[in-house]
Formats: sequence, structure tokens, C-alpha cells
Amino acid sequence: MAKANVYVTLKPALLDAQGKVVQGALENLGFGNVESVRIGKYIEIEFNDGENIEQGVEEMCQKLLANPNTENYRFEIVK
Amino acid sequence: MAKANVYVTLKPALLDAQGKVVQGALENLGFGNVESVRIGKYIEIEFNDGENIEQGVEEMCQKLLANPNTENYRFEIVK
Repeated sequence: MAKANVYVTLKPALLDAQGKVVQGALENLGFGNVESVRIGKYIEIEFNDGENIEQGVEEMCQKLLANPNTENYRFEIVK
Repeated sequence: MAKANVYVTLKPALLDAQGKVVQGALENLGFGNVESVRIGKYIEIEFNDGENIEQGVEEMCQKLLANPNTENYRFEIVK
């Protein structure tokens, strides 16, 4: 059984509003040394069989998991 | 400048409703070999200085970034 870990992140040029809110909350908690916080998605996908996993995940990212207009993605195949 | 990557995942015993929906969508797109999909958060934190980063991120996870009742977390310090 193969597994893929997919990381979907907002493009660097775009404001991460959720990240800004978390950064403010961290500062309020006393963490003054935070320069930036950016929040993305971490998706774990398990497969029944191990064929063409890499190509499949690439397609999944393009068709569903990431928004090509606003997000970047990368993934790794594990196991 | 130090950076931390934090991974927040739903505890394995809990149903990941969002993951189930994505799994169904992937099946509808023709990806029939998906066993499970679980969706977590991927948080990138950049720091102004590099002191006590590890201890700080541990505290951040416990106090804000993860819900200890429903989520697990792990992190790595990079750079």
C-alpha cells in the first residue's frame, strides 16, 4: 500500500488572512519573535495499489486538491 | 532566521468528514484506487531570531495551533 503526502500552500504573493490572524494571536500570547505565519493544507492519501501513484497524485492536485489560481502544491510518495 | 513547519492532523480514531468528501470526489473523477484521504493543516512559521525555537513551537502547538482534544501535531525546524 502506497501513501502520498500533499502540501498545498497559498502562493507567496497572496495575503494569508488566516495566517495573519494566527500571527496576531501568537503575539498576544507572548511570542514576539514571529516574522510570518502561513497556513496551508496537509493531505494524506492512502492507495489500494501502488501503480502510477506519482502521476495520479499530480493529476489529483491539478484537478481537485489545489486551486491553480491561488495555490501551489508539492507532494511526496511514502512507503 | 529560523523557520518551523508544523503539521496538525486529526486523531486517527476520529472521522475526517472533509477527507471523506474529497475521497468521494476523487472517485468520481476516476481515481478508484484511493483507500483513504485525511486532511490536516500545514503551518509555516518564520522567526526573527533563532533562540529557543523548538520550545516555542511546542508551546504554540499546545496553546493555539492544535486542539489537544481532537488533533495531533508534529513539527520540524528548518534553516
